[in-house]
Amino acid sequence: MTITGPVPEAGLTGADLTEASLHASLSDPALESMNFLNEIGMRYPEAISFASGRPCEEFFDVGLIHSYLDTYCGYLAGERGLPADQVRRLLFQYGRTKGIIGDLIARHLELDEDISADPESIVVTVGCQEAVFCVLRALRRDSRDIVFAVDPSYVGLMGAAMLADMQVWPVRSGPDGIDVHDLAAQAARARAAGLRPRACYVIPDFANPAGVSLTVPQRRLLLDCAAREGILLLEDNPYGLFHDGEALPTLKALDTTRQVVYLGSFAKTGFPGARVGYLIADQRVAAQGGGICLLADYVSKIKSMVTVNTSPVTQALIGGKLLQHGCCLAAANQRETQVYQRNLHQVLDGLAARFGEPGAAVGTGLSWNTPRGGFFIVVTVPFTADDAMCEYAAREHGVIWTPMSHFYANGGLSQLRLAFSQLTPEQIETGLGRLAAMVKSVSQ
Amino acid sequence: MTITGPVPEAGLTGADLTEASLHASLSDPALESMNFLNEIGMRYPEAISFASGRPCEEFFDVGLIHSYLDTYCGYLAGERGLPADQVRRLLFQYGRTKGIIGDLIARHLELDEDISADPESIVVTVGCQEAVFCVLRALRRDSRDIVFAVDPSYVGLMGAAMLADMQVWPVRSGPDGIDVHDLAAQAARARAAGLRPRACYVIPDFANPAGVSLTVPQRRLLLDCAAREGILLLEDNPYGLFHDGEALPTLKALDTTRQVVYLGSFAKTGFPGARVGYLIADQRVAAQGGGICLLADYVSKIKSMVTVNTSPVTQALIGGKLLQHGCCLAAANQRETQVYQRNLHQVLDGLAARFGEPGAAVGTGLSWNTPRGGFFIVVTVPFTADDAMCEYAAREHGVIWTPMSHFYANGGLSQLRLAFSQLTPEQIETGLGRLAAMVKSVSQ
Repeated sequence: MTITGPVPEAGLTGADLTEASLHASLSDPALESMNFLNEIGMRYPEAISFASGRPCEEFFDVGLIHSYLDTYCGYLAGERGLPADQVRRLLFQYGRTKGIIGDLIARHLELDEDISADPESIVVTVGCQEAVFCVLRALRRDSRDIVFAVDPSYVGLMGAAMLADMQVWPVRSGPDGIDVHDLAAQAARARAAGLRPRACYVIPDFANPAGVSLTVPQRRLLLDCAAREGILLLEDNPYGLFHDGEALPTLKALDTTRQVVYLGSFAKTGFPGARVGYLIADQRVAAQGGGICLLADYVSKIKSMVTVNTSPVTQALIGGKLLQHGCCLAAANQRETQVYQRNLHQVLDGLAARFGEPGAAVGTGLSWNTPRGGFFIVVTVPFTADDAMCEYAAREHGVIWTPMSHFYANGGLSQLRLAFSQLTPEQIETGLGRLAAMVKSVSQ
Repeated sequence: MTITGPVPEAGLTGADLTEASLHASLSDPALESMNFLNEIGMRYPEAISFASGRPCEEFFDVGLIHSYLDTYCGYLAGERGLPADQVRRLLFQYGRTKGIIGDLIARHLELDEDISADPESIVVTVGCQEAVFCVLRALRRDSRDIVFAVDPSYVGLMGAAMLADMQVWPVRSGPDGIDVHDLAAQAARARAAGLRPRACYVIPDFANPAGVSLTVPQRRLLLDCAAREGILLLEDNPYGLFHDGEALPTLKALDTTRQVVYLGSFAKTGFPGARVGYLIADQRVAAQGGGICLLADYVSKIKSMVTVNTSPVTQALIGGKLLQHGCCLAAANQRETQVYQRNLHQVLDGLAARFGEPGAAVGTGLSWNTPRGGFFIVVTVPFTADDAMCEYAAREHGVIWTPMSHFYANGGLSQLRLAFSQLTPEQIETGLGRLAAMVKSVSQ
């Protein structure tokens, strides 16, 4: 938020406004997290930042944009048999609201995730954020409709829910992610309060921010619980591909009752600047005029009112990347996966070398989780790791991390999140040294 | 909407839904207009369609995408002096919520529209639709906040308002667009009903759907009225550039009190597939924590919850097109303007040749307006021009137009909209002949 400085009241006109007259989301502190971290980063540019969960940049190459576009156009002309004027129209003109690469996304899902998705149930969106917003907006009929989310949860979910005026009801987290027993308990509590639980948002694999993953039995319990409670599971999966070779099945792959709306992102497996995501919403909806539609059809209607359709050019870039790797994103991301796994192990090893064994409160009293993939590790510390401490760490020790309290409805004051996706081995080594010095100075 | 056909009830699961449980916008008939027209078009592919307001396609060229990208990258490296890794990061990584081409858009506005805009007050959006949605969402604090719009109005405005749960309050139209006296009267009525008028949406130049333009004195009256009533004017201007050589000043160019939020689209002056639009929101907002921010800062926060940021690749394409024409879109669109002007005059001349003088109910009893630019003409007919008549016209006479009733809160049953942007001279000639035959057959 740009503060343009104090403007004399005399300079204001009748057209000027007060924040209190604007939508409530605009005054919510949850939205200030990103600003806080950006500002810290800008004020201390020499600090090593474990705050950013952005993908690594070493394989970015402008030539790839040209190459992806050519590959996709070649596919349209060849495999799809489109004449040149139709290829031009597809890229330049307004287009199908659900998108034009649903077929390629379905191939990828089959290969990488063992998910069989009807392309008609796929809606391509402007990043996964738009998918989250559109599905919440569709499910929010009135103020009684609520969505569950594990506490701590992803800030983007909070933002989308606030925009949809939909209450996010927190559910306790266990050591591996959402506590399924608490989900059932909270659903009962919400119903008793006259509310209608509609969905539960989860990141089962290498969650942001907690870094944890649900075990397979917990996934099955969660599916059963959702079916029993009559709620949808909104499964967000931006990091699942970056594992150590042993992937767990997604909820959607285990789903036999259409309980799961799958939220897909190409920000990490494609590239963020494409702003391409999608969802699978294969749920049946009994239409008011009779007949049965897919939930994807309704979400697509919402999308048409938000952004009309996702740019076919950016879809072509993701389509081209998919095609260049036989629609297998695990293959397309071999180098990236190696970087993330290398960084993960370097951080875990570096923490153990400095603080003792993970999980055990040895010496300095620190503990941390040990994910097998993803971008994040959470460290529990024996002191308050709030914004003031974060600023102190940046200023005095040249290291930045994210206070976990930003992601909690309540709590998280003694936890910090380390993101390692964008760092070099040298930065990790130096950064962990600085973190250790900071911990030492605070613990004295 | 894809109807997947009757599915046996036994096939439904607990995860399936009813339309009545979804957001009210999804059952609103206003959203069915586009479906209706698409379906008619698909059922009668041989019919000549005056329904589509899409830009002409004859200058689309896939090579341009490569060329625009190269031009923009050259500008970043040259004029902006960015090293190669920063150029790559700008295109591939997450980016600034307000966008990266605000400087070029400001140059264009200065050259083409005589608007001086601080780039900090510009937010680049995923098409103009996202700009409309974000500004309405920001202005809608609770159910008392309403937006005015001339009746008939653009469907996209209705959609965005429905998604923001914001009531659209209709204002009467005069022969040139919004009736400013009625706006004042409706504002008083709304206030008496306990509501808070926040803004009025207008397309002053070659409006969609009515084709009309406000005179300069009416523009000044409208600005005065908005200032008096304390409402913002949301000025949408997708067609203003396609005039006969004599442009009228935009509201924003006449605005001395920051009364106008300007909504810009590159769908017609760039290309629709880029999905790039923007808004100028230079209004001052008194922040709750003290200090003054720009309304653009708040809109940008909303945008961050909807789509995070607009794809920098698509921004680079529009940036490249701007740069290739010295940021002058009038120059960039000379050929397109010629096509639209040629088509406009062919339709006007063709109507006069077949039905007598415009504006006069001669012979067949038809009249129509005579815009000097844009994409649309509205014809008033002495019979009911509803969906059934549209279907009859397509089936029996091979011609499609848009029933104006789709754009009205009430009325428009004897009006049809002719869009001529995408037709060849031959199609216009044949189409008008078919229209005349249809009118004759109905009038008998």
